[in-house]
Amino acid sequence: MKRNTIQAIACLGGRFGDQLSTVEAVRRHHATGVTAHRTELPDAVLFARATGDVVDAVRICHEHRCAIVPFGTGTSTEGQISAEQGGLTIDLSGMNRILRVSPDDLDCTVEAGVMRKTLNASLRDTGLFFPVDPGADASIGGMASTRASGTNAVRYGTMRDVVMSLSVVLADSQVIETGTRARKSSAGYDLTRLFVGAEGTLGIITEVTLRLAPIPQRIAAAVCAFSTERAAVSAVVAALQSAIPLARAELLDALQVEACNRYSKLDLAVCPTLFLEFHGTDRAVDEHVELMAEIAKEHGGGDFRWATATEERNRLWQARHDIWWAALALRPGSQGVPTDICVPISALPDVIARTQEDVSELGLIAPMCGHVGDGNFHLCILVEPDNRDEQARVAELNGRMVARAHAVGGTCTGEHGIGTGKIGYLAAERGEAMMALAAMKRALDPRNIMNPGKILHAGAYRPYQ
Amino acid sequence: MKRNTIQAIACLGGRFGDQLSTVEAVRRHHATGVTAHRTELPDAVLFARATGDVVDAVRICHEHRCAIVPFGTGTSTEGQISAEQGGLTIDLSGMNRILRVSPDDLDCTVEAGVMRKTLNASLRDTGLFFPVDPGADASIGGMASTRASGTNAVRYGTMRDVVMSLSVVLADSQVIETGTRARKSSAGYDLTRLFVGAEGTLGIITEVTLRLAPIPQRIAAAVCAFSTERAAVSAVVAALQSAIPLARAELLDALQVEACNRYSKLDLAVCPTLFLEFHGTDRAVDEHVELMAEIAKEHGGGDFRWATATEERNRLWQARHDIWWAALALRPGSQGVPTDICVPISALPDVIARTQEDVSELGLIAPMCGHVGDGNFHLCILVEPDNRDEQARVAELNGRMVARAHAVGGTCTGEHGIGTGKIGYLAAERGEAMMALAAMKRALDPRNIMNPGKILHAGAYRPYQ
Repeated sequence: MKRNTIQAIACLGGRFGDQLSTVEAVRRHHATGVTAHRTELPDAVLFARATGDVVDAVRICHEHRCAIVPFGTGTSTEGQISAEQGGLTIDLSGMNRILRVSPDDLDCTVEAGVMRKTLNASLRDTGLFFPVDPGADASIGGMASTRASGTNAVRYGTMRDVVMSLSVVLADSQVIETGTRARKSSAGYDLTRLFVGAEGTLGIITEVTLRLAPIPQRIAAAVCAFSTERAAVSAVVAALQSAIPLARAELLDALQVEACNRYSKLDLAVCPTLFLEFHGTDRAVDEHVELMAEIAKEHGGGDFRWATATEERNRLWQARHDIWWAALALRPGSQGVPTDICVPISALPDVIARTQEDVSELGLIAPMCGHVGDGNFHLCILVEPDNRDEQARVAELNGRMVARAHAVGGTCTGEHGIGTGKIGYLAAERGEAMMALAAMKRALDPRNIMNPGKILHAGAYRPYQ
Repeated sequence: MKRNTIQAIACLGGRFGDQLSTVEAVRRHHATGVTAHRTELPDAVLFARATGDVVDAVRICHEHRCAIVPFGTGTSTEGQISAEQGGLTIDLSGMNRILRVSPDDLDCTVEAGVMRKTLNASLRDTGLFFPVDPGADASIGGMASTRASGTNAVRYGTMRDVVMSLSVVLADSQVIETGTRARKSSAGYDLTRLFVGAEGTLGIITEVTLRLAPIPQRIAAAVCAFSTERAAVSAVVAALQSAIPLARAELLDALQVEACNRYSKLDLAVCPTLFLEFHGTDRAVDEHVELMAEIAKEHGGGDFRWATATEERNRLWQARHDIWWAALALRPGSQGVPTDICVPISALPDVIARTQEDVSELGLIAPMCGHVGDGNFHLCILVEPDNRDEQARVAELNGRMVARAHAVGGTCTGEHGIGTGKIGYLAAERGEAMMALAAMKRALDPRNIMNPGKILHAGAYRPYQ
């Protein structure tokens, strides 16, 4: 342990007592999560209970130049919680109060450790819901930090869109509020959007003000089979162009459908399949469903298979949410490596087709699912944990996919973030703009204590004039 | 003229010849626009034709530490185009090429000088439109720089939401692309959102990639009279809570309705009135209109007066767009001073009522219109251009309105920006977060040459550690 870290932890121990742990199992838990990346353990873990705890911890770490890693629930996939330089992990899960819900304003303020399912459960009586659904039951602070999205984004947007304001503890322990509760504002630089997606590298989010959505009068869900992924994507493009407000448009390839059939006891035809959901008023949903069924047919889709009862709908979407586990069950004992490119939707069919060729050429097993309304899709690449050769082929596949995304104007990550895993891809994507990213980081965290080694390498600290 | 400016302009003259003007009428035109604020003239104006022109001009100005003010069309209202330190104004109106339209991706890329009406005219055959409508026919670059919005924002969002990526010339003349063409991304800091709304103080926007919307199958417009502003706002809140997708929800107070009747030859009842618009598929629009009519009735609204024919609808919305001129005609020879607060919608009725009391107490004439779905409203305060006493009362009114907005968690500007006019209000709104704003500015423009004196005072350049 570095000397400054030893001093910082001694100070933190004096301030926090039992709230601070240096037990190895605790440190290991906080560096592990669901990621397949190698991670480093922090030297201590603080269980924060209030913003004041975070302020005091940051002040001590700032003074001693000790690294700080914020931790929500550990569901990030790109190594965001790895303590690359050791130091302190701040666990925010104890900051789980819902501070305010204003039904008339369709907004609320929560502490960063509130889980999205807990929030939705507590909102039920208000007629509102929090619409961003990345699958995992993540913390709101973590979702803001990774700019999470998921199945509903085509309709309700991503964390970029629904976060109205943040309370953030900066590197010098100053607490700022990044915005207001106004639904729009032209008042100066958009600090809210700067901290959303910054993965804790510019400050620690302690409170989040969120825009909520009204629970729709009616929800209709259906699945529809296609002969090719291209046909399914074309149907979604046609729907978007016709202004049919899809609430969800998820594409599963044949292998993923097979996995779901086995794991979730479904009996879907084993071919590329769209999972669709429509939200709205009664007749509007009827009309949108009719129009979509026509469009699907025009693109060679099969009949819609309906899930009108809530129970049936939940079973279907539970299966969609469980695809990760369903995929892993295809190869018992395997580990899943997720990919996450996002491209202009017109390029999606080709990119998917070429990716599937790559998977086959590289001898990998990798079922696919996509948030096709956004041009975003994931593979779950199934690998043996200790098979180096296989892991090299996974890296090759991921690299090819990212290069292909960049070639068509897309991005290396639609919703998982950069962490440690995609730093090289980010540099390739941003080019000269990396200078501006590094300038932001230096401006707000000149000592490089906030989640160091994520998004930017230390080498990115080039001078800027 | 300062010595460094003289040198810069000599260099610029050598590089640009006839594209550079030092004629006073030209300089005056570029500092005037529609704003009621005092403005300063630049020492020269460059008519840029391509990004390369902007790069060369910025390089020369950077070398000589000469101030630069970007200019689109001059429709900003808070003094954004004033050359506070003299220097060079770069007129981008010659950069008016539509570079790419991709109907399948629902996006396009345009040069910063393209006007929004021109863009919409050129999109007509694609079935798409650019939905942000601030009233004025502004340039896309200017709209991005002020984070503009307008009547459609309740449905389609603001420039924050529709800008996908920007080409920006930084203070050191480096050109960067801030994003990609992916509809969402978690790839590092959100530079796009940082430059949207930065009013040219961090860099000059030269190209804009925009998300477009499909032209709705059907558009229905109606007006509905209410006895009070409170009743009208409550109806809109109820509609939002019921997930009725309003495309526009504009409130005019009785005085503004009277002004419109006179100016646009309408015969509306002189009372608080909602202008509503619905976009969607056929039956969905029918249903939304029915539901909204019920809600309006429950809140004491009168019958809907329909404008189903395109012609009639255009006449109605033309009247809405002309309210500024209609208001000015109430007091011939007067100048209009716009206000622009935005508050949580539940606070809107009280804030409007208190504002109207203030108007009356201060002896001013100020018709009101509001984008009530967003909680944003404007007064057009009618003043005699040289009446100092009246102008003092205007400042008092504006100050009270902003203080009231801040007291309820709102913002001093929903869509007009800060410019020179609202720097004090911004500081009051952001508090400690101003340090972070100043840090951004110092990081990207250490010489303070990019539109200096806007958003931040020079005094805001405090050190940050």
